[in-house]
Amino acid sequence: MKFLQERIVSEGRYLGGGILKVDSFMNHQIDSLLMRAVGVEFARRFKPLSPTKILTAESSGIAPALAAGIELEIPIIFARKHQPVTMAASAIRETTVSHTHGGRVELIIAPEYLTQKERILIIDDFLASAKTIMGLASLVRKTPATLVGIGAVIEKSFEGGRALLKVLDVPVESLVAIAEFRENEIIFL
Amino acid sequence: MKFLQERIVSEGRYLGGGILKVDSFMNHQIDSLLMRAVGVEFARRFKPLSPTKILTAESSGIAPALAAGIELEIPIIFARKHQPVTMAASAIRETTVSHTHGGRVELIIAPEYLTQKERILIIDDFLASAKTIMGLASLVRKTPATLVGIGAVIEKSFEGGRALLKVLDVPVESLVAIAEFRENEIIFL
Repeated sequence: MKFLQERIVSEGRYLGGGILKVDSFMNHQIDSLLMRAVGVEFARRFKPLSPTKILTAESSGIAPALAAGIELEIPIIFARKHQPVTMAASAIRETTVSHTHGGRVELIIAPEYLTQKERILIIDDFLASAKTIMGLASLVRKTPATLVGIGAVIEKSFEGGRALLKVLDVPVESLVAIAEFRENEIIFL
Repeated sequence: MKFLQERIVSEGRYLGGGILKVDSFMNHQIDSLLMRAVGVEFARRFKPLSPTKILTAESSGIAPALAAGIELEIPIIFARKHQPVTMAASAIRETTVSHTHGGRVELIIAPEYLTQKERILIIDDFLASAKTIMGLASLVRKTPATLVGIGAVIEKSFEGGRALLKVLDVPVESLVAIAEFRENEIIFL
């Protein structure tokens, strides 16, 4: 994913504290064609696992998940952070922590969409501390569905999230991995 | 958009109080291919207006906006409801009201992406009371960019939002419009 690396180099801004701002093409403004390419690449990597649904977290996960869902021709489900009135009392939840939103975040899903036959692929924008992804995986474990893989657009390897995911025993793919932020440089793996 | 109507009839659930639950294909689980078709239709209707960017609101607007953005080959911007640490202090905001989330909701954007040359198309999942869309239009007015059109996947005509949007003097398109909820029936316009 050379073009994604180039975009991070040219437009990403390191804010300190391990936080990379990619608001100009991924997290606030979204480059639709870049996101389509992200979806194509996720589909290429995960198609062999025959996922039947994608699970992500609102809001920044929705775009890469939908782009992958369109290519794989499977539905996506996004975990809600706040329970809307349309969601039944039977919703299941996990509590996690977000750096970029400061503090505890809830992940809430309606379990009716994760039945026994479903093979779930988790997709998110970042793999950093892996807290959100572990929260999503815990939600899947509370349902009869099977987790088959995990994909992130950008991995911040120095935060060690990938090691935490080992316990899940599924393939983990990131499209770009950042080893280190130096003063004026982003070092890719 | 016959297939969207059929989907609303077969899977939509009327919860009372004017609220339609479409969580199985649009607002929690998303049918990726349906959403791609929604994007194709928005692109067909709005291409003549030469929009350069799409503005929407998190979270439920992101999928239809991205689908349209991919077809129109233009970026999307989603207004945040909570300001993340990556967003600068110069962010601009509007306060609106959400039925489905119960109460006041903020819409926050970084104005740097709405410069004078941009022609903004607003896309959202629902056009009901039009409060969210009016909030998004107010954000555009606070920038040098030009609003050129408004699109919603599902319009609830009985809530009268379309009349409110007249003051904006731009084309308003909904893919499906619901005139009325009767006891066990959804009446389309």
